[in-house]
Amino acid sequence: MRLSRYFLPVLKETPREAQIVSHRYMLQAGMIKQASAGIYSWLPLGFKVLRKLENIVHEEQAKAGHIAMLMPTLQSADLWRESGRYDGYGEEMLRMQDRHGRDMLFSPTAEEMFTDVFRANVGSYKDLPLTLYQIQWKFRDEVRPRFGVMRGREFLMKDGYNFDLTKEDALHAYNRHLVTYLRTYERMGLQAIPMRADSGPIGGDYTHEFLVLAETGESEVFYDSAVTDIRMGERDVDFDNHDQCQAIMDEFTSLYARTDETHDADLFAKVPADRQRTARGIEVGQIFYFGTLYSEKLGAVVDDGKGGKAAVHMGSHGIGVSRLLGAIIEASHDDKGIIWPEGVTPFHCGIVNLKQGDNEADAACQSLYDSLTALGLEPLYDDRDERAGAKFGTMDMIGLPWRVTVGPRGLKNGVVELTSRRTGDNEELPPEQAVARIADIYRGIS
Amino acid sequence: MRLSRYFLPVLKETPREAQIVSHRYMLQAGMIKQASAGIYSWLPLGFKVLRKLENIVHEEQAKAGHIAMLMPTLQSADLWRESGRYDGYGEEMLRMQDRHGRDMLFSPTAEEMFTDVFRANVGSYKDLPLTLYQIQWKFRDEVRPRFGVMRGREFLMKDGYNFDLTKEDALHAYNRHLVTYLRTYERMGLQAIPMRADSGPIGGDYTHEFLVLAETGESEVFYDSAVTDIRMGERDVDFDNHDQCQAIMDEFTSLYARTDETHDADLFAKVPADRQRTARGIEVGQIFYFGTLYSEKLGAVVDDGKGGKAAVHMGSHGIGVSRLLGAIIEASHDDKGIIWPEGVTPFHCGIVNLKQGDNEADAACQSLYDSLTALGLEPLYDDRDERAGAKFGTMDMIGLPWRVTVGPRGLKNGVVELTSRRTGDNEELPPEQAVARIADIYRGIS
Repeated sequence: MRLSRYFLPVLKETPREAQIVSHRYMLQAGMIKQASAGIYSWLPLGFKVLRKLENIVHEEQAKAGHIAMLMPTLQSADLWRESGRYDGYGEEMLRMQDRHGRDMLFSPTAEEMFTDVFRANVGSYKDLPLTLYQIQWKFRDEVRPRFGVMRGREFLMKDGYNFDLTKEDALHAYNRHLVTYLRTYERMGLQAIPMRADSGPIGGDYTHEFLVLAETGESEVFYDSAVTDIRMGERDVDFDNHDQCQAIMDEFTSLYARTDETHDADLFAKVPADRQRTARGIEVGQIFYFGTLYSEKLGAVVDDGKGGKAAVHMGSHGIGVSRLLGAIIEASHDDKGIIWPEGVTPFHCGIVNLKQGDNEADAACQSLYDSLTALGLEPLYDDRDERAGAKFGTMDMIGLPWRVTVGPRGLKNGVVELTSRRTGDNEELPPEQAVARIADIYRGIS
Repeated sequence: MRLSRYFLPVLKETPREAQIVSHRYMLQAGMIKQASAGIYSWLPLGFKVLRKLENIVHEEQAKAGHIAMLMPTLQSADLWRESGRYDGYGEEMLRMQDRHGRDMLFSPTAEEMFTDVFRANVGSYKDLPLTLYQIQWKFRDEVRPRFGVMRGREFLMKDGYNFDLTKEDALHAYNRHLVTYLRTYERMGLQAIPMRADSGPIGGDYTHEFLVLAETGESEVFYDSAVTDIRMGERDVDFDNHDQCQAIMDEFTSLYARTDETHDADLFAKVPADRQRTARGIEVGQIFYFGTLYSEKLGAVVDDGKGGKAAVHMGSHGIGVSRLLGAIIEASHDDKGIIWPEGVTPFHCGIVNLKQGDNEADAACQSLYDSLTALGLEPLYDDRDERAGAKFGTMDMIGLPWRVTVGPRGLKNGVVELTSRRTGDNEELPPEQAVARIADIYRGIS
């Protein structure tokens, strides 16, 4: 993309309404614009990152055999009356009536809808296990939306629902979700620590939240520092293997790691003193096993293969996709702007032309652009007639992890400059080597 | 995908509520499920096609330099009051109040939102031309929703908005949209004929609708049969070239082709008698130039480079993405089910194992599956323990364009059967040749 043809409204002023850095930088970098309280328009740069996050979620869910579909945003109130949640949900649920006076609502979550699709179409244990999910916009009418996309009212969420014959199978689905979520976050350059969470009114022991450590996190967290040493990495996972998934669950959750909601001071005291940590965390996902709660209320039963009927064991599993943009920026920025991890960057690298209009510089930039594009990479070429400082400022703010700087002086020596946004390290090298280096960096990253 | 692990609830009965074939087949093939009147859940097979259509739209828009972003579904009423459309829009607009009593609405279209983003961020002619678009769910509260996704209330739409300094530039944008739309439809296996449309209360000559000929179309259309001979094909288009885009516009729109709304019997009579056609058509898109209507009302002005200010010339351009699924099926089916064009098929081919559990047949199917997958193709392998008739019935209904049938008898002779869904033609050939043939068919189709 040539910047002169893109729509990247970078703000010069610091937006006053932004209390946290991710909100501020998303506004400044021209990623979002507030439409109304807690509701955002996703400008081209923001939308591009959002799509990348969506794709990573889809790819990791597919590996585990979870199946994508899509529910409507607007739902009839009737289904929620059946589950008993319509009256109880409170003011966070946005309600409306259509022209015929029928009660409707904007989906804040979708347990009812998925259970309804299941009960209408699945009747036998032979069709299990089954995990369906969607990535769809939700609405929760927060009293005081704030922190930009971190706590918006209209937000993009991945929500998945497993349907299993037995508790054991459902707990395997629970473990599968943990594995896929860990991998998803790692591909986004995040370390999200699974922490035992509060199951709330539903009860039960089976719920974990995934928290990214960040000073601006809304939750206080307590953990054994050893948990931050564990990574999923590239290990091969057989998602049909119960024992293997359970082992990963155990590996990631047996060390102490809890939010203030479930914190147990006595247990925490048993963690070796030099490994006890208190910090703040941003919740970016949650997994939940809730048994037959909804299946019984909504009649989601199957033939159990023994001549009887069984209500299916279910869980729900969510990732806050739009919120993740904020979390990534909270975890990865400096005082000049955003620093995108390679896995989610909106463009793979920037090209800065120090002397737009100079024949040689223009030709060298175009050639770099063409070479990178031919390799399937997407560069952002700042071809505006601006001074170098302004171009560097924009690149630093929008946070592309790599920048190639092209100027007449370097070209005389046959080199361009490759700069890491994260470290600030510069290196002079011939253009074709810069291209090869960037291609190397992104090998294996889609 | 192995069918035993997929969620494909094919219905045995013919759904009574469906009046047209696309609605019936989408329900029977397990692509959609009605959630409430005119509102559908997209089951996995339907969602997969929807994503493919979305991607084609994105790719073709990108080629013309149009830039993707995303607006929220819920919008504040204030902006619509500013444009004067809030009160006038009528009952099709779904309105609601949030918990603080603020008037909101579910976006039925987005001229106001895009103009607002533009005016807040663009101040100079130097930033033009600019075309922004989104693919987002809209809601229009039709009195009597019907025909499945063809006339639903919640629907997925691509809507684009161009911002230009002059009428001439805006008409070039209009032409660019015509070109991208023609290419988009052709990639989906559709012929959509641009027809002069009624501009309604806005006035002006610049609006065309794109109509797919089909018996179940809602509009009566009148055309010169020669228009059906024109194709965009693979021609190279320079989207910066005004003359070239204008020539394509002229080529596609100078022959007579109008809907009943703009039909002119006298003009039609001048078409050679043997080329006069009357038929029915499904509207799948519309392009519109409306000048400074919204930019003046909303104050979208720029420095004109001559010391003055100018309200920008705009147009809006839409493709009914979810409706296209219905249109494609209306245009491509037989009495056994859907016939997907290769460009949009949810799976590239089906694999039918005639004797599940037979070692040789199972191994041959698995090997076909692995070979196709390794080539980047996505087969659907019917590995269920069902009789052949049921498997063929499912494949015919869901409409994958190619099927490989594997059975012990053929394997003894070293062959499998490759069948075209469209023609019914069968061919026996060795498995590796079947794979090569399928790879050939999809070469150049993403």
